Amino acid sequence: MYLPNDIREEEPNESEYANRPIKTLFLLHGYTGDAENWVPWYLADKYNFAVVIPNGENSFWLDGISTGHAFCKFVGEELLGYVQRVFGLAKTKEDTYIMGLSMGGFGALHTALYYPDKFCHATALSPALVVHEVANMKDGVGNEIANYEYFRECFGDPAKVLESDNNPETLIKKIKAEGKECPKIYMAIGTEDFLLENNREFHNFLESEGIEHTYVEDKGQHDMEFWNRYVLKFVPMMFG
Amino acid sequence: MYLPNDIREEEPNESEYANRPIKTLFLLHGYTGDAENWVPWYLADKYNFAVVIPNGENSFWLDGISTGHAFCKFVGEELLGYVQRVFGLAKTKEDTYIMGLSMGGFGALHTALYYPDKFCHATALSPALVVHEVANMKDGVGNEIANYEYFRECFGDPAKVLESDNNPETLIKKIKAEGKECPKIYMAIGTEDFLLENNREFHNFLESEGIEHTYVEDKGQHDMEFWNRYVLKFVPMMFG
Amino acid sequence: MYLPNDIREEEPNESEYANRPIKTLFLLHGYTGDAENWVPWYLADKYNFAVVIPNGENSFWLDGISTGHAFCKFVGEELLGYVQRVFGLAKTKEDTYIMGLSMGGFGALHTALYYPDKFCHATALSPALVVHEVANMKDGVGNEIANYEYFRECFGDPAKVLESDNNPETLIKKIKAEGKECPKIYMAIGTEDFLLENNREFHNFLESEGIEHTYVEDKGQHDMEFWNRYVLKFVPMMFG
Amino acid sequence: MYLPNDIREEEPNESEYANRPIKTLFLLHGYTGDAENWVPWYLADKYNFAVVIPNGENSFWLDGISTGHAFCKFVGEELLGYVQRVFGLAKTKEDTYIMGLSMGGFGALHTALYYPDKFCHATALSPALVVHEVANMKDGVGNEIANYEYFRECFGDPAKVLESDNNPETLIKKIKAEGKECPKIYMAIGTEDFLLENNREFHNFLESEGIEHTYVEDKGQHDMEFWNRYVLKFVPMMFG
Repeated sequence: MYLPNDIREEEPNESEYANRPIKTLFLLHGYTGDAENWVPWYLADKYNFAVVIPNGENSFWLDGISTGHAFCKFVGEELLGYVQRVFGLAKTKEDTYIMGLSMGGFGALHTALYYPDKFCHATALSPALVVHEVANMKDGVGNEIANYEYFRECFGDPAKVLESDNNPETLIKKIKAEGKECPKIYMAIGTEDFLLENNREFHNFLESEGIEHTYVEDKGQHDMEFWNRYVLKFVPMMFG
Repeated sequence: MYLPNDIREEEPNESEYANRPIKTLFLLHGYTGDAENWVPWYLADKYNFAVVIPNGENSFWLDGISTGHAFCKFVGEELLGYVQRVFGLAKTKEDTYIMGLSMGGFGALHTALYYPDKFCHATALSPALVVHEVANMKDGVGNEIANYEYFRECFGDPAKVLESDNNPETLIKKIKAEGKECPKIYMAIGTEDFLLENNREFHNFLESEGIEHTYVEDKGQHDMEFWNRYVLKFVPMMFG
Repeated sequence: MYLPNDIREEEPNESEYANRPIKTLFLLHGYTGDAENWVPWYLADKYNFAVVIPNGENSFWLDGISTGHAFCKFVGEELLGYVQRVFGLAKTKEDTYIMGLSMGGFGALHTALYYPDKFCHATALSPALVVHEVANMKDGVGNEIANYEYFRECFGDPAKVLESDNNPETLIKKIKAEGKECPKIYMAIGTEDFLLENNREFHNFLESEGIEHTYVEDKGQHDMEFWNRYVLKFVPMMFG
Repeated sequence: MYLPNDIREEEPNESEYANRPIKTLFLLHGYTGDAENWVPWYLADKYNFAVVIPNGENSFWLDGISTGHAFCKFVGEELLGYVQRVFGLAKTKEDTYIMGLSMGGFGALHTALYYPDKFCHATALSPALVVHEVANMKDGVGNEIANYEYFRECFGDPAKVLESDNNPETLIKKIKAEGKECPKIYMAIGTEDFLLENNREFHNFLESEGIEHTYVEDKGQHDMEFWNRYVLKFVPMMFG
């Protein structure tokens, strides 16, 4: 967790950002990643937001089928509640943001869409929007990333995943059906990224559903150089 | 990871422990635990051993069935190899120890018995020796700790677990059949611990197989007070 | 910083300790030490107190003469204020404790006595009560621990230290003169400790001033074994 | 400390950087800073270098006059020796680099010039080259940053600082007099930085002494935005 230092009385920070309540960003790591801050802290200081950095194992930030793998509930309920109670942060939807990269980009979209009353904004860098690929898996056959058991553990029965709440598209339709306000969405994907097609499809889906969002394709790969570049672009857009 | 400070030239440590190669202890946490040192560092300084503290999620330190859950191989091969290459530690079996509590006590026994050529010693505090309980699980029915999917993920098909390498008893028999040297075993269990019966059974199994080991039952529960007490007792026995 | 986990709604902690406001313990390290937790976290969970662990360099936790060395003000004003504002902890004197070992034992006594309106309790393990030794130093002549410049930096001009606020005895007299309530004091010192005489003298001073306190001499040296033993004894007395 | 992961056998890293010995970068923080990594780890992975990140308090990374403030010796002897012995890193001058920002930029220059046989390269971002300012201080009169005692503690008697080893210019002259090879020097300073004049003077000094170096003035202030920009520029120049 990163907390911006509070303002010294003798040296008040005159900026407009310093004189509003602290906002909170939940930051989700990627596959084989770990809780680690990849948002430069000087931006958190400048724009006055706290960063909460959970460890989500390789869960796709979903509620897996085994006990102890409820990572969607962990972020959206247990951890958010803890941060609210212990730090007095993220008390309103307007102050609560989520961002992730790769598997965590999927997680940021999914978590915000699952809890549209709690998150005002989801930023997804190169999100691993693989639900349709999972849905097509045959029993016992995985892909080059992981085996079938892994995807079943994270997403539940592949045959039922498209209709399930583990599919962000399902959640978008629910939000519309219930007349709720959809969290703001930012997405960026590199044109050399193996996830490019998946991202285009989700972008098209959002368009077809009339969901306003920011979608950027830019030169780059599935690596920290691309993500650092887009953290520097999106953070001022999110918190400025 | 905890490394004892090296000896200052101008102030040589006269103790016998300081003047032998640094030994290495792998330390395994319990269910719902995390990598955290529960060995007082002054003991590591006194007896001159390094502590390596992995995060094993809730895996029972086994190679689970999903990609990315190979925690037995992680500890006994990847992490051990890394520690050998990068730190020059744990280069021989004689210098390589493992200890754990609860789920990690099971993991310490299992890992050392799975790699009897790599570990000279396993210390198990209140080990969760639940293999027989897992073997009796009916499809879809878990217990009060976790659901069936969880145990299937960690131990594989419950119907086959007793014969599998996930059962420490199977590993003991293999070691004997292959004429290998069994790692030294220390166990301690509280008389108020819900795992007491499981521990007695494994103790009896070791006796019936003629495996020398240290087994202690003592007043206490399944908690840090008991474990702290036995860390203080066992560490000098292991490294003194 | 260590925060006891908050209570899960579905599993209320029935103990009397869990159902009172969280208390806060400031924990001060010794000479050549660093911010590191030497209070077993299971005790913090059991008695429901947070632990705040600053780094005080080798400052004797005093306001040294150089810019940037104001460690007494740092703990008693800046850090305490931060903890109050950001965590909502240590809001009253009754909830605010301080403990230290060796140089930090001196610091715990000094800080609490300097801010008797803010701290209700100071626990000093083997405190380095060296003010009289410092007062006798000749210009340019240090001792076996550090040179004259070091003591001048920490304590100010040695010739004036006894009358200064860097002398806990001066602070005791001030507290009495101002009719304030003195924080509760616990002290423990090993009978093999090189600081034994200094501790006896301060104990006698407290007696002669009529300040109630707990003072224990016990077999032991100036080492973690002694301090661990007395943490286990004093923490239940402080928070039980 | 950041260590690039070693190469998996089954997936050799084909890059030229991966197939040479790991290089080591000592990274020095600024005034009021702390040990914290400000080099993106993906660069350390790409170019295969370890990062060692000491805490130097507010010492200007010099050997101050008080016991326990020998931060130049700490970095160049104790810490470097520890890293050599425990990690087998930084065993030759060619593999040993140092970089710092602000006060740490001064420290990087000073440490490398003090130990020209140990460091092959010093990179100084906005270095606080304040020796001439210190030399002009009158007894008891500091500046807006710190008091006289502070500068005396760090630099020794201001009246003697220019001739002392705390002055990088003195060290440059010594290196030349002894016919040693001067470490490579990179410097960058923002045109809005209050240290611009000091940097120009040192740059001119290096030119006048015929010391080859890279010196860049660029738009920017004394802040992380400038330093992040120049880390991204200099790291590939240093390790590429």
